[in-house]
Amino acid sequence: MSLDEPESRPHARLAALLSDDLAAVNATIRERMASRHAPRIPEVTAHLIEAGGKRLRPMLTLASARMLGHDGPHHVTLAATVEFIHTATLLHDDVVDESTQRRGRPTANLLWDNRSSVLVGDYLFARSFQLMVETGSLRVLSILSDAAATIAEGEVLQLTAARNLATTEETYLQVARGKTAALFSAATEVGAVIAGAPDDVTRAMWTYGDALGIAFQIADDLLDWGEGAEIGKRTGDDLREGKLTLPVIRAIAAADGDERAFWARTIGRGKVEDGDYEVALGLLNAHGTLASTRDDARAWAARAVTALEAAPDHPIRHLLADIAGYVVARLN
Amino acid sequence: MSLDEPESRPHARLAALLSDDLAAVNATIRERMASRHAPRIPEVTAHLIEAGGKRLRPMLTLASARMLGHDGPHHVTLAATVEFIHTATLLHDDVVDESTQRRGRPTANLLWDNRSSVLVGDYLFARSFQLMVETGSLRVLSILSDAAATIAEGEVLQLTAARNLATTEETYLQVARGKTAALFSAATEVGAVIAGAPDDVTRAMWTYGDALGIAFQIADDLLDWGEGAEIGKRTGDDLREGKLTLPVIRAIAAADGDERAFWARTIGRGKVEDGDYEVALGLLNAHGTLASTRDDARAWAARAVTALEAAPDHPIRHLLADIAGYVVARLN
Repeated sequence: MSLDEPESRPHARLAALLSDDLAAVNATIRERMASRHAPRIPEVTAHLIEAGGKRLRPMLTLASARMLGHDGPHHVTLAATVEFIHTATLLHDDVVDESTQRRGRPTANLLWDNRSSVLVGDYLFARSFQLMVETGSLRVLSILSDAAATIAEGEVLQLTAARNLATTEETYLQVARGKTAALFSAATEVGAVIAGAPDDVTRAMWTYGDALGIAFQIADDLLDWGEGAEIGKRTGDDLREGKLTLPVIRAIAAADGDERAFWARTIGRGKVEDGDYEVALGLLNAHGTLASTRDDARAWAARAVTALEAAPDHPIRHLLADIAGYVVARLN
Repeated sequence: MSLDEPESRPHARLAALLSDDLAAVNATIRERMASRHAPRIPEVTAHLIEAGGKRLRPMLTLASARMLGHDGPHHVTLAATVEFIHTATLLHDDVVDESTQRRGRPTANLLWDNRSSVLVGDYLFARSFQLMVETGSLRVLSILSDAAATIAEGEVLQLTAARNLATTEETYLQVARGKTAALFSAATEVGAVIAGAPDDVTRAMWTYGDALGIAFQIADDLLDWGEGAEIGKRTGDDLREGKLTLPVIRAIAAADGDERAFWARTIGRGKVEDGDYEVALGLLNAHGTLASTRDDARAWAARAVTALEAAPDHPIRHLLADIAGYVVARLN
């Protein structure tokens, strides 16, 4: 889901509030993506990292740390760490998904090759660990290495869950954590840790990031079914790729024999014909699963907002709450 | 270069001496390669990790720690960490090189697919960082994250150096560190750190691992030119793949016009015909570059042995010296 929106949007207001910190993060990223020996590395990294990413994840770290009173400089280091992990996963994802477009530009695997994307991704992972070691916090290292494991595990799980009609909501949630929420929650949690926040506040910031990430992922999946009708968003990709997202999992659970055969042919065996997208959409609506999934996304966003009550009153807190609201406001 | 040899060989004697520790490392590996959510992960990992790898790198960590008086249990954790990093790089290497065979078995990218190899490799990297965080040593984390960056950087460098006739010996050395020596030297260094060795001994153990790794890589490259004539080792692969190894770099530096044209066609443009391998071999011999490279491998092995003089007299020290001698003894 793109959050590239006019300046009134909450993430843009947060970015304005954190503009000095974000400039420092960008400087750290540029400095640390350099390689003394292999110029291919900064070329590939710059292609992706300077293509106008939203820096949402590093912003979550900066916001969490600032809101909880941190005065630097580790929040900048950690925010750059989080962006490196994110960039590394994007490079590998594009290889895994054989993608050709990312952020409106050709992907690195297309411009260079798969091998460059794999190896530069590995380099950025290693760089991210070097950066976090510099903070000297074993707790931060533990949180971020756990997140990296959850991300990779979620990606493998998504691979094996594709086209599998027996995929459960529990599996979906694990995949959503891997794809999105694990790095969101690690980003907000390490911000709290580096600020020296009390344990209950740190836990609350984890909960905020986790719930925001899950709301974000559910909303993103709904957009593929035309919910929100964002300009430029292709619909029907998930049906063609056999992705078991929440509305589909629920429609399959409620399916009669004919409907089950339809899902087995399309999602299960990948035989998608003209008109199938409309039939699928009809089934989701007939069983009310788009509506119930929308309700879920809103419930996760509400959980994110509630978690923020543990944090002190602060302009950043209100913006973080607004971001959670914004993620689901565009649905329907 | 395979070190799978009869039991009299030094690494086999070291393995026998460290057999309890190695059993503990294998148990840790099995335990930690599990995934609660994605069974594909232990399947892919087990395929590679149980295919009879030599465990040379984890053995270096165990040997270094034990020789310097460490009494556990972190040496086992670190040895498993080192093996996970090694396994992750093998999974990614096989994708990058489009390999079909590894350790005498079909590669994971062939049995499953490239995407599984990429993602399971990422998972093992993340797991390795989780493991090293458990040691609680920021110095260990710094050494191993630096090694991970050097490995990825060396791989990217190898990618861009292939078919490039201007490749220097300095670049070759950096690639050799990335492919082999960086993990060897990190393995021996963290063993010393965890044992609480004095700084000069820790530095010496780094030097041992670094020099052993470079000797190992140079020897491996020489085997491709028939030096040592190991059974089952294919010769001529590096010529076909346009790899700039030391004997070739030196022969190109000494080449006349016709010879240069030959290297430009074969290494540079990948036009390798029947008989070219023999011509190339003739050029390496004419310029004495196989002999000078062999001398270099021996000098690196000698440097490794000399470094061990900083360590206390210990049965393991003698075995480590024997391993360095063994790596180059089979050349010629």
